[in-house]
Amino acid sequence: MYIKTRMTTKNPLQSRPIGVFDSGVGGLTLVKSLIRRLPHENIIYFGDTARVPYGSKSPEVVREYTAQDTDFLVSKGVKMIAVACNTVSSVALDVVQKRARVPVIGVIVPGAEAAVGQTVNRRIGVIGTAATVKSNAYRDAVRQLDPLAEVFAQACPLFVPLVEEGLLQHRATEIIAREYLFPLRQHHIDTMILGCTHYPLLSDTIASVLGAGVRLIDSGEAAAGSVESALDQLQLRNPSTLQSNLQFFVSDSPEKFSRIGELFLGRTLGKVRRVSIG
Amino acid sequence: MYIKTRMTTKNPLQSRPIGVFDSGVGGLTLVKSLIRRLPHENIIYFGDTARVPYGSKSPEVVREYTAQDTDFLVSKGVKMIAVACNTVSSVALDVVQKRARVPVIGVIVPGAEAAVGQTVNRRIGVIGTAATVKSNAYRDAVRQLDPLAEVFAQACPLFVPLVEEGLLQHRATEIIAREYLFPLRQHHIDTMILGCTHYPLLSDTIASVLGAGVRLIDSGEAAAGSVESALDQLQLRNPSTLQSNLQFFVSDSPEKFSRIGELFLGRTLGKVRRVSIG
Repeated sequence: MYIKTRMTTKNPLQSRPIGVFDSGVGGLTLVKSLIRRLPHENIIYFGDTARVPYGSKSPEVVREYTAQDTDFLVSKGVKMIAVACNTVSSVALDVVQKRARVPVIGVIVPGAEAAVGQTVNRRIGVIGTAATVKSNAYRDAVRQLDPLAEVFAQACPLFVPLVEEGLLQHRATEIIAREYLFPLRQHHIDTMILGCTHYPLLSDTIASVLGAGVRLIDSGEAAAGSVESALDQLQLRNPSTLQSNLQFFVSDSPEKFSRIGELFLGRTLGKVRRVSIG
Repeated sequence: MYIKTRMTTKNPLQSRPIGVFDSGVGGLTLVKSLIRRLPHENIIYFGDTARVPYGSKSPEVVREYTAQDTDFLVSKGVKMIAVACNTVSSVALDVVQKRARVPVIGVIVPGAEAAVGQTVNRRIGVIGTAATVKSNAYRDAVRQLDPLAEVFAQACPLFVPLVEEGLLQHRATEIIAREYLFPLRQHHIDTMILGCTHYPLLSDTIASVLGAGVRLIDSGEAAAGSVESALDQLQLRNPSTLQSNLQFFVSDSPEKFSRIGELFLGRTLGKVRRVSIG
C-alpha cells in the first residue's frame, strides 16, 4: 500500500499512486508500459466497462462519462492522471484537466511527438475510433509540431471488437485490415500512429498489411514516456524501492475484465473491484 | 399525436402508444414488423445508444439499465411494452414486468414458440449475444414447450459490430459466420432462432452457411405477432384508422441512430430526440 512507503520523500505527493483510466480494458497496454518504465510507481486503474465503448459515441456523452471517471480517480488521491483512452484524449482532455487538480497526460500529444520524431517523408497515418478520427485531434497535434507534415486518418471501428474476441491473427481480421489500411498505403505514409489502446495487439497484422517501410507508433507507450518525464520534471517520482501496488477498478463485473485484461497486461491482474459511478 | 385519435374507443388505453425499447438501433427490426402488422398503432421507441451494447455486459448492469429504460417508457403513458432486446428479454424481463404496470412482451417466448412450431427433427439452434446465450433463456423456453427438443446455442459477439458497420454480405462476415455456425451445423439443427435484433440483417449470410434445410426464426417478427395477439386478447387495439405516429428517443446523439436506423427500418425515421436517462 502506498501509505506504507518509507517517508524519505521530500514531497508527500510522491508516494501517491498514478491514476489511469480508459473506457474499458485497452488502457492496460499503457499500464504495461508504465510498469516497465516505472516499476516502483503505484497505479490505480479505472475501466468504465459498464459503458464501454466510448469510441462510437458522441463527444457530449464521452465528456459526461469522462467527468465521472476523473472524479473517481481524484477521490482516490492520485498524484497524476494518465488518460489511456484515445477517444477521451481527443474529445474530453479539457474535462479531465479542469476537474483533476493534478497533472494530466493524454495520449494524443505524446503519440504525435513520437510520429513527428520518426517520420522521414513527413507523411503520417493515424488509425483510431470513429470519435478520435472525427475529432482531428492527432492531425492538429502533428501540425502544431510540424506544420508541413501531412496526416491521413482512418477510422477502424471493427478493430476493437476483433481484439476483444481474440482474433488477433485471423483471416477475417486481415481482410478487414486490408480494407481499412489500403487508402493509407496509397498515401505513402512512412509512420502510422496506432490511435487506440487496442491496436498494439494487432501490430503484426497491421505491419504485414502496411509493409516493412512503415513504423508503427504505440500511443500508449509514447504516453508512458511522457508520464515518466512529467514525474521527473515535477519531482513527483515515488522514492520507494518497494514492489509497487496495482489496484484495478471497473464499473461492470470484474470477471471478463480480468480474463481479457491478461491479454493486454501480459500477466494476471490480481484483485479487480467493481465500483458504481455515474 | 395519439391523443387526437377519434374517441370511438371503448377503453381510453386503446389509443395510447406501444412502447418498444432496445439497447440501441437493433429493435427497429421489431418496429418494422409491428408497422406491417399494426399500421394504426402509435409507437414510442427508446434506444439506449449512450450505453450500447448490453449483450457483452453483466446481468446486474443490464438489469439496472433496463429499469431506467422501462421507467422512461412508463413516463410516456404506453399501453404495452415490447422488449426488442434479446439480452434484456433473457436476463431482465422480470425487471420490466415489475415496473411497467402494463402488459409486457419479450422476444424469448415468441421466438421459442415459433421455433418449436417449425422444427421437424426437434433440433433447434440459437445464436445471440454472450449474455443471451449464457442465460439459457431460449433453451429453457423451448424445453417448457417441448421437453424433448434439443437446443444448441452459440454466442456470436462479432455479428452486432459487423452489422453496425454495414458488412452484411462481406467476405470477413462470411468467414466469421462459418466459425460461429459450423458447430451448430454439425448438430443437424433444422431450425435456427436469430436471438438478437441485429441478426435478421445477416439472414442471407447465415442461410448460405447453414444450407437450405435450416429455417431461420426472426425473434422480432415472432414478438410482433405476440404483440398483435395480446392487443386483441386484452382489447387494446387502437381503433383509429389514422396514420400512426412514431416517436424515436435515444440516449446519445440522434444523427448516427437516424443513419443506421434506416438500414433496420427500411425507411427514414423522421425526427429522433435525445433524452437523458440514468
